[in-house]
Amino acid sequence: MEFLSGVSRKDTLEISELAQAEKVGQKVKVNGAVHTIRNMGTVAFVILRKREGLLQGVYEEGVSAFQLKEIREAAAIEVEGILEKNEKAPNGIEIRMETLRVLSEPEDEMMPLAISKWKLKTSLDAKLNYRPIALRNIRERAKFKIQEGIVRAFRDFLYGEGFTEIHTPKLGAKSAEGGANLFRLEYFHRPAILQQSPQLYKQMMVGVYDRVFETAPVFRAEKHNTKRHLNEYTSLDLEMGYIDGFEDVMAMETGFLQYMVKLLAEEYKKELEILDVSLPNVERIPAVRFDEIKSLVSEKYERKMRNPFDLEPEEEQLISRYAKEEWDSDFVFVTYYPSKKRPFYAMDDPEDPRYTLSFDLLYRGMEITTGGQRIHDYHMLLEKMAARGMTEEGLTHYLDTFKHGMPPHGGLGIGLERLTMKLVGEDNVRETTLFPRDLSRLEP
Amino acid sequence: MEFLSGVSRKDTLEISELAQAEKVGQKVKVNGAVHTIRNMGTVAFVILRKREGLLQGVYEEGVSAFQLKEIREAAAIEVEGILEKNEKAPNGIEIRMETLRVLSEPEDEMMPLAISKWKLKTSLDAKLNYRPIALRNIRERAKFKIQEGIVRAFRDFLYGEGFTEIHTPKLGAKSAEGGANLFRLEYFHRPAILQQSPQLYKQMMVGVYDRVFETAPVFRAEKHNTKRHLNEYTSLDLEMGYIDGFEDVMAMETGFLQYMVKLLAEEYKKELEILDVSLPNVERIPAVRFDEIKSLVSEKYERKMRNPFDLEPEEEQLISRYAKEEWDSDFVFVTYYPSKKRPFYAMDDPEDPRYTLSFDLLYRGMEITTGGQRIHDYHMLLEKMAARGMTEEGLTHYLDTFKHGMPPHGGLGIGLERLTMKLVGEDNVRETTLFPRDLSRLEP
Repeated sequence: MEFLSGVSRKDTLEISELAQAEKVGQKVKVNGAVHTIRNMGTVAFVILRKREGLLQGVYEEGVSAFQLKEIREAAAIEVEGILEKNEKAPNGIEIRMETLRVLSEPEDEMMPLAISKWKLKTSLDAKLNYRPIALRNIRERAKFKIQEGIVRAFRDFLYGEGFTEIHTPKLGAKSAEGGANLFRLEYFHRPAILQQSPQLYKQMMVGVYDRVFETAPVFRAEKHNTKRHLNEYTSLDLEMGYIDGFEDVMAMETGFLQYMVKLLAEEYKKELEILDVSLPNVERIPAVRFDEIKSLVSEKYERKMRNPFDLEPEEEQLISRYAKEEWDSDFVFVTYYPSKKRPFYAMDDPEDPRYTLSFDLLYRGMEITTGGQRIHDYHMLLEKMAARGMTEEGLTHYLDTFKHGMPPHGGLGIGLERLTMKLVGEDNVRETTLFPRDLSRLEP
Repeated sequence: MEFLSGVSRKDTLEISELAQAEKVGQKVKVNGAVHTIRNMGTVAFVILRKREGLLQGVYEEGVSAFQLKEIREAAAIEVEGILEKNEKAPNGIEIRMETLRVLSEPEDEMMPLAISKWKLKTSLDAKLNYRPIALRNIRERAKFKIQEGIVRAFRDFLYGEGFTEIHTPKLGAKSAEGGANLFRLEYFHRPAILQQSPQLYKQMMVGVYDRVFETAPVFRAEKHNTKRHLNEYTSLDLEMGYIDGFEDVMAMETGFLQYMVKLLAEEYKKELEILDVSLPNVERIPAVRFDEIKSLVSEKYERKMRNPFDLEPEEEQLISRYAKEEWDSDFVFVTYYPSKKRPFYAMDDPEDPRYTLSFDLLYRGMEITTGGQRIHDYHMLLEKMAARGMTEEGLTHYLDTFKHGMPPHGGLGIGLERLTMKLVGEDNVRETTLFPRDLSRLEP
């Protein structure tokens, strides 16, 4: 019998602890993974990979109380020694290694990828095939640390704005947005689907908490094999009641982006530097009507408009180019999307029902958010469903919620991997997905 | 064209803003859902449901500039009026309503459940059938606000301890823990499964970030129909490297529980009061060996021990009773679980390989966590798999990661709904699951 009374504090130190001035000249103990060894003869540099970065250990024949050959690349070790300043070493410090304790040995120290190189110069396919190894590269892992910062900012910002976090089920009987894009499975001898969005749940929960959000996986059985599509991704969803219009939702997203930029600058400085990322200016984000920006772009770049009710990927690129050139913004809200491109729950513009009170947010040429005001009136919902030839099947609970009153509301969904991709300057969404799922990839 | 420059601040006020002393006597504007109306003749009390609680509006015939019949229960409204103190009203304040703006009308104000009652006296089945409505009850919704606090504490605590948040895929080719408990589906003409745990992914990521966590859904096709089982639930998972033993993992969980209790006491006081919840004392949590506690319980409560290598639900109850009586603790770690009850990746006790370096955490008679040290040595993994007759099929990437070095590590998984259930004193896990999925329930 013993008692646990809280986190066990260790005498091994992390880089931020070592970097404190008073530690220099002292004997310290550290652990880490052997990232690489540079053997210069009687002296060798043993670079340890730790969660906060790289740490240089110096081996000296006759001084260190062990043999260099006892250290293998990819091993996990613990060393003790004197901490010294060295401008050339990572973080300006190094440890003159005295004693060694090997914590874990690799079976094979020949890595399938040269992870200790600064840039992992290999194909995306190779990186994804060896993902758990590839991510040991300092630049690769920095991307997902920044991704953490984005999700963290989303949640922290929304807690502060009075939102409640919810956890909605991913297994369901039928999805309202329905159709061909659903993964289907058998659930105890009944047909089931994987939710492609928490849309209907978050709307129902607006009737409970006024403002809700969720950060969770969504599943789309789309047969797209592009640089921007995934079959499973993390969706940052919010839904808010008592809005005066969908502008309130865009304003909330702008607030989130401002908070995100601030949090990243404060807490993820190291990773931003590793990846040489400049944070975007989000002080003000332009919002322009769908039909208006189509004309503007068509005029400025002398491009023939084919379909006035749809946006081609190339047009998204041009709209972002326009926003950058005319308004100096990496982001642009495109508003009043055509009704036929939006789901049944989108609220039509009463002034012109061919358009909806909705928006997309484009970031450097790519849609990263879809949002808008939703229908809150039970009858209006039924009418729009009828006009689309939809039945109430599988929507009973959703519709019942509206029957018993719902405030005016709207919301949005942000694709986490896409936002990360554009922020760190990648051009394939798989680069910023930990373990991507696409048409051909179900492992690792 | 317009610009968005951040969150739109409204002139409508929330309860915490109204509760500030300087607002009393002033004209204020609020919105909310009409929770209930008590008509006393020439005066009526209109109770608004807002995200921070209930707010009393006072209607006075001839004084209020509208008719009472314009307000229907379940409508969303906006009112203006003078704020006054009233000790008997919720939060000690009320609004003498002057003007009314109806934001949204219900189709049917007759609720299927009496949500405005303090306690929703109805069957669990009825509550789950009308979940989006049932949750409008103040006590029902408070449970999930507390659940938010638990998840939030888990993340905030772990960020502070140097953990990195990860998002691992829920669709996979095959799970290592395999077997009958997996939901299966077709993934673009290939067989796929839904992950029953992020176990293998979080272990692989220890090689990248040293310490990782995830808060995400897991899927279990178990045919249990009990008060404690769900087929989809939210798992709070962590995995940490460079441990000296599984005691470090228990210590980390104790630290989390201490942080959680503190955060709930500070930020979720209102909800704790609504549900009359007393937070548990987690200053120190006893840890006792599996074989030892079995004997102790058997002796103290004169209960015949049937199987020395398994724990029956009744024994879990008795162990918690013992921990409460002998050590005054609602929590108890049971350590060194029998090897045959643990998965292949669990590290056996070198002193006695019939047991593992692992633990469960029991909370008021129920297992809410399973954790322990994992095997980090490639050969030891292969040997244990061989001894269990397992093949490497579907585990190639996992095993490769160990081939290339992994530090000693361990981790745990906490069932969010179970922890919430025990914390708020419910006796069925469905009570603390927003939209439960069980053998018979796939909707709403």
